[in-house]
Amino acid sequence: MAKAKGNLAIGQSGGPTVAINSSLCGVIQEALAHDEIGEIYGMFRGIQGLLSDQFIDLRRQSPDVIKGLRRTPSAALGTGRYKVTPKDHERILDVLKARNIRYVHYIGGNDSADTSLKLHKLAADAGYELHVIAVPKTVDNDLYGTDHCPGYPSAARFVATALRDTGRDTEAMGPASPVKILEIMGRNAGWLTAAAALAREEEGDPPHLVYVPERPVSVERLVDDVQRCYKEHEHVVIAMSEGAQEAPGKTLGEEYAPKEVDVFGHRMKGGVSDYVAALLRGRLGLKVRLDQPNYLQRSFMLCASPIDLEEAYRIGKKAVQEALTGRIEGMVTLTRDPGPEYHCSAGIASLEGIANREKKLPPGFMNEDGNWPTNAFLAYARPLLGEPWPPSSYVRLTKLFV
Amino acid sequence: MAKAKGNLAIGQSGGPTVAINSSLCGVIQEALAHDEIGEIYGMFRGIQGLLSDQFIDLRRQSPDVIKGLRRTPSAALGTGRYKVTPKDHERILDVLKARNIRYVHYIGGNDSADTSLKLHKLAADAGYELHVIAVPKTVDNDLYGTDHCPGYPSAARFVATALRDTGRDTEAMGPASPVKILEIMGRNAGWLTAAAALAREEEGDPPHLVYVPERPVSVERLVDDVQRCYKEHEHVVIAMSEGAQEAPGKTLGEEYAPKEVDVFGHRMKGGVSDYVAALLRGRLGLKVRLDQPNYLQRSFMLCASPIDLEEAYRIGKKAVQEALTGRIEGMVTLTRDPGPEYHCSAGIASLEGIANREKKLPPGFMNEDGNWPTNAFLAYARPLLGEPWPPSSYVRLTKLFV
Repeated sequence: MAKAKGNLAIGQSGGPTVAINSSLCGVIQEALAHDEIGEIYGMFRGIQGLLSDQFIDLRRQSPDVIKGLRRTPSAALGTGRYKVTPKDHERILDVLKARNIRYVHYIGGNDSADTSLKLHKLAADAGYELHVIAVPKTVDNDLYGTDHCPGYPSAARFVATALRDTGRDTEAMGPASPVKILEIMGRNAGWLTAAAALAREEEGDPPHLVYVPERPVSVERLVDDVQRCYKEHEHVVIAMSEGAQEAPGKTLGEEYAPKEVDVFGHRMKGGVSDYVAALLRGRLGLKVRLDQPNYLQRSFMLCASPIDLEEAYRIGKKAVQEALTGRIEGMVTLTRDPGPEYHCSAGIASLEGIANREKKLPPGFMNEDGNWPTNAFLAYARPLLGEPWPPSSYVRLTKLFV
Repeated sequence: MAKAKGNLAIGQSGGPTVAINSSLCGVIQEALAHDEIGEIYGMFRGIQGLLSDQFIDLRRQSPDVIKGLRRTPSAALGTGRYKVTPKDHERILDVLKARNIRYVHYIGGNDSADTSLKLHKLAADAGYELHVIAVPKTVDNDLYGTDHCPGYPSAARFVATALRDTGRDTEAMGPASPVKILEIMGRNAGWLTAAAALAREEEGDPPHLVYVPERPVSVERLVDDVQRCYKEHEHVVIAMSEGAQEAPGKTLGEEYAPKEVDVFGHRMKGGVSDYVAALLRGRLGLKVRLDQPNYLQRSFMLCASPIDLEEAYRIGKKAVQEALTGRIEGMVTLTRDPGPEYHCSAGIASLEGIANREKKLPPGFMNEDGNWPTNAFLAYARPLLGEPWPPSSYVRLTKLFV
């Protein structure tokens, strides 16, 4: 082996997804293929692993384990949410220098892009040659510079699958228990919630209503929407973002969120969909049921999109390649190629335009009423879920009453 | 076609499952094969369909739709929870007679067995020949007379899958967000919650603690359990029944369940796991995360156990066969055959021993501490989930720190 130019450190950050280990696999396998790269260090629990000099030796893992990462959910290196501050800069530089780390790949969302940018700047300021190429990941899909974020397609597939199945359940209950709310992740951005609409195969199928943070809906309007759908279908299935708003900046029912503390001094639970459930029970006298799958949305491997896993792997490799071409900073991106067949190419963008920004659902992706995604959104999102989606093989009996 | 002896009515009742339509398919296909059976009526929304004389014509459905029921979750006929009272008896008899219904198959749990028993008795009292053969179904698995209930194996597979994946998520978060509670259905019986333990492939894997209604755990003991697990693993994943108790008959924290009503006069949400989350935050100062997939447990088709779908289909057919042999009342059952390979045979039992009783987890299925199922339970439950379960293909990096 030729003398390595330097060592590589890879970390995972923020909330895990089913695809983040696929990117890790891509980085490791690509790094192993290049003599310029010496040691391959895995930061234990994100940037904190670098700060505490805790690294997992990724060269000495078995090839089967490395390969298995492509089908393993969650973050195999451990993850964290530590925010780097100026007091950490000296320590970071010390560790980078002591270990001759010249390549850093950080897999994560907005905050992680910010961390990557800080690493780049502090190294540049110190005149220390460092290649920082971030790898995007977030089920929220709110990163600029990329068609979509790895992790999102699989979470979207879970949400659409869950909505379709729990929607069938509600349909069968009919007026006995007619309203179902599926609460969906994404406090500030409605990408994941909007994906619930992909569950609809035929007119009238659940979901009937979709509420996202970008399109506030008044309480009166919400009640009217539900009442109208109930009259039409005898049941109503709602895809509700955990951050749905009733006015810009005002989460639905936030003034009714329990202010009392429990016996231990902690506030009781009560999010948007708890409030909306109480609202609809009170105003319409209907039974309302809630599904809050929370962390299942980002971890449920059975719903992984094959496209997502493949793209996540590919951009992991691409990050290493970009660093080796001499690029000093950036985030790898996905760009959708023109043409009828879905395909994204991997590209690269500067971290400056990405860090600390949130990409919201554009206005053209929700209808005028703010309660259903447009065909433009559906056309954007559908191919990401991969096959076999849709249609389902589910049937309905013909209502031939005798 | 020879002259039919009488018509058949089939209904679905209580909470849907992924397997209840498979039983419906079995009933219809078997009924179609016998000339003694004339019309095949589907009760629209359970017994209420009979009371309101609303029947779907099942003879005129396309064979593909009938076949497709085997892979369709929820209850295709619609379901309900109506409880038959003596004032309904005359009306029921009138409809049965007017339509010459001689065969009734009702798919459901304890309450449905009770309904079936009532139908049998009122017909017998009136001297009206009626064959009532119930078909068991409930994710709670709490019916007597059968090895297990169709619906349970698939829900158990969902729970074990969800626990395994969300457990990986918690493991990756480590001390930053170390406690996860997966809330599991079954207010009075712990069968489904105990199935979460099947997620464990190696010592130390999630879940770390399993709490069921049958084995009350004091608050002090619960806190101690969690603290001990946290010290050992730096994260703790808990499978918590929605009906977990701290003393016999006393749900955990029921005195702290929100008594305040919301602005609409309805009580705010606050179940067992909301309470336990607040408890652990307060007492241990740890971040606690909750997954409450609720109705996904009984509807998530991707997690259907192939064994479950096959058995549900088989007992649907068996119910018709039993009625045609002249049996007047009963519930079809599953009996586990001896031998190393899992197989259940379909049998039949009298409704008298089944209706209105709940089969709890036997003492030998939980450990002495009441926080983990025994190997006897695991051996009972594992084969029900079908292949490929376990093991998963997930990997873990070897913690080779450098």
